[in-house]
Amino acid sequence: ATHSLFLLPGDGIGTEIMLEVEKLVAWTNAEGLTDFSTDRGLAGGSAYDAHGVAITDEDVEKAKAADAVIFGAVGGPKWDDVPYEQRPEAALLRLRKELAVFANLRPAICYPALAEASSLKRELVEGLDILIVRELTGGVYFGEPKTITDLGNGQKRAIDTQVYESYEIDRIARVAFDLARTRRGLVHSADKKNVMKSGVLWDEVVKGVAADYPDVELHHILADNAAMQLVRTPKQFDVMVTDNLFGDILSDVAAMLTGSLGMLPSASLGAPDPATGKRKAFYEPVHGSAPDIAGQGIANPIAMIASFAMALRYSFNLLELADRVEAAIAAVLADGLRTGDIAQDNRKTVGTEEMGAAILARLKA
Amino acid sequence: ATHSLFLLPGDGIGTEIMLEVEKLVAWTNAEGLTDFSTDRGLAGGSAYDAHGVAITDEDVEKAKAADAVIFGAVGGPKWDDVPYEQRPEAALLRLRKELAVFANLRPAICYPALAEASSLKRELVEGLDILIVRELTGGVYFGEPKTITDLGNGQKRAIDTQVYESYEIDRIARVAFDLARTRRGLVHSADKKNVMKSGVLWDEVVKGVAADYPDVELHHILADNAAMQLVRTPKQFDVMVTDNLFGDILSDVAAMLTGSLGMLPSASLGAPDPATGKRKAFYEPVHGSAPDIAGQGIANPIAMIASFAMALRYSFNLLELADRVEAAIAAVLADGLRTGDIAQDNRKTVGTEEMGAAILARLKA
Ligand SMILES: CC(C)[C@H](C(=O)O)[C@@H](O)C(=O)O
Ligand SMILES: CC(C)[C@H](C(=O)O)[C@@H](O)C(=O)O
Repeated sequence: ATHSLFLLPGDGIGTEIMLEVEKLVAWTNAEGLTDFSTDRGLAGGSAYDAHGVAITDEDVEKAKAADAVIFGAVGGPKWDDVPYEQRPEAALLRLRKELAVFANLRPAICYPALAEASSLKRELVEGLDILIVRELTGGVYFGEPKTITDLGNGQKRAIDTQVYESYEIDRIARVAFDLARTRRGLVHSADKKNVMKSGVLWDEVVKGVAADYPDVELHHILADNAAMQLVRTPKQFDVMVTDNLFGDILSDVAAMLTGSLGMLPSASLGAPDPATGKRKAFYEPVHGSAPDIAGQGIANPIAMIASFAMALRYSFNLLELADRVEAAIAAVLADGLRTGDIAQDNRKTVGTEEMGAAILARLKA
Repeated sequence: ATHSLFLLPGDGIGTEIMLEVEKLVAWTNAEGLTDFSTDRGLAGGSAYDAHGVAITDEDVEKAKAADAVIFGAVGGPKWDDVPYEQRPEAALLRLRKELAVFANLRPAICYPALAEASSLKRELVEGLDILIVRELTGGVYFGEPKTITDLGNGQKRAIDTQVYESYEIDRIARVAFDLARTRRGLVHSADKKNVMKSGVLWDEVVKGVAADYPDVELHHILADNAAMQLVRTPKQFDVMVTDNLFGDILSDVAAMLTGSLGMLPSASLGAPDPATGKRKAFYEPVHGSAPDIAGQGIANPIAMIASFAMALRYSFNLLELADRVEAAIAAVLADGLRTGDIAQDNRKTVGTEEMGAAILARLKA
């Protein structure tokens, strides 16, 4: 095979929705549109149950060696009390860090067929197309010290450290500006420079990068105001670049606006290898493992399939095929098919497999 | 006078809306409903222009000595380039810290007359009444180290530190649980315990406090999910307790849901003095100094007046008078008066003074 995919379905609905991606891969391979080898690993609770760790070193190595990692979702109440270092999320954090996929792209797109499902008024979200560019390997997620100390007298002190160096901000800003050029040419950079020194440096570096992109419009916005403005008039935004923690929250707000959390993919990219030009890459849906509906065959596979489409686009430069997969998703929605999470009156509610099959059928057509 | 108010109008619209509070105080004093002395100070850009600092030591001392501080808003483009330590926000941060007002209460109420102004669908926000209880004197706002270091080679490193000790979490949790008892008896505690050690400690301490409040229902929620759920189905929340940084963002999201940012007050309270039982207290609108409309006499004074109502309630136990002020606000809105920020078809748009006068007239009636 020319290219390798490493599949980490994870927990809960992760395994169910990954199956639909595997069917897609089988078809694109059979058609000669791709030449992927696939391997599977365990991550999160399922890895803990099998090996006592959130992910094995072996699977981390496989992820590093693969051309792209396709990740489902991790976590569930079953693992609420496992040791902190082995909690399901630890798999995700370790993979992000070891793959060094610093650029997390989270598109928030409102599918026309679903505009009604948003909690916002239709006219505010119809046609919404925001891209959140979140820094993913720095900040308070990984900074040291990160400790809880017993002070005696029943008192403890907890410390987390937000650290950013110029180069980390520079490279994520360039990703945002490059992408803005292919879109509306507008970047909002969100930080809390009125309170945080990391925000001061963030703003300084982003403004420096902006000088290399005179054709892109840069606006500074405070992170709290960004959250408000996303709720007030989301269509004012095109690309928003922000740090790991603000990106976590702001991308979730943006996702929720679309009314279709189960539909949203993400891509996490590393720096291009100087020799080969290849980037390490990690694709995952924005939603979680939804333990409440796991095992029922009713999960929405669209975010997972759309994440695979992002892999086609960003890791394999198969732009046309990526477009076709995305068009197939939009088409089945326009046809009136819905999974339970986006059920609507006068639309047909289907399960995971049926939705996956419908998308595949559209692709074949 | 029995009680002292220290007024810090600040910058921009702060000075205009504070005038309406002063008129109210003149009336409640004249009626014998209150016996307030008032003094005024400078904060933010106006203090910088006069004294070269965001707030003078003398004004900080006056704020500490007062029974309540009534604060307008600070900031504006004019002061974008003043030295970091003297930026307008520094006044606010210094006051919060020196007054030790750790408990920031931010009610997000949707006035029936304004439900249509929300970007959310009416049925999702009509009757909304959320209280965000934000920790205000700890966390990443004040933790040390908080530095930018030059590393050479054009590289810098910025560090901010999130620090929480058990007692800080314990006392803010108790404020939240006490308030929940007077409301729907429901507390959501928001943190990122899946990533931050401060979140782990936060959750541990809050769960410990909950044991003293068997009549209050506690739910843990991750901060990113909290932001999403606020946008999705805000009425599921009653009281939400969270740290300084998450509280900054989540309270802004909650405020925006109501469609009436210019209407929302806040109270920041210290610990009761062991001898006198008095709490230091600081009242301010949630909105900013709105430099774009400053000086035009069109700012909405309602959040400022509602902040004064919170002072009547929390600092002076004048519950009936506080209720009357709040009822007067609701009444003028029901009468159809609107400032520009909440203008509606078939409603009368008025300026700051006219709105203040209408509320006062309602109070007199
Ligand atoms: C699961 C969790 C560690 C993760 C994060 O906080 O980054 C998730 O919320 C996300 O946004 O991918
Ligand atoms: C002005 C700023 C320092 C402040 C904060 O971040 O706390 C503001 O956003 C607020 O919420 O009161």
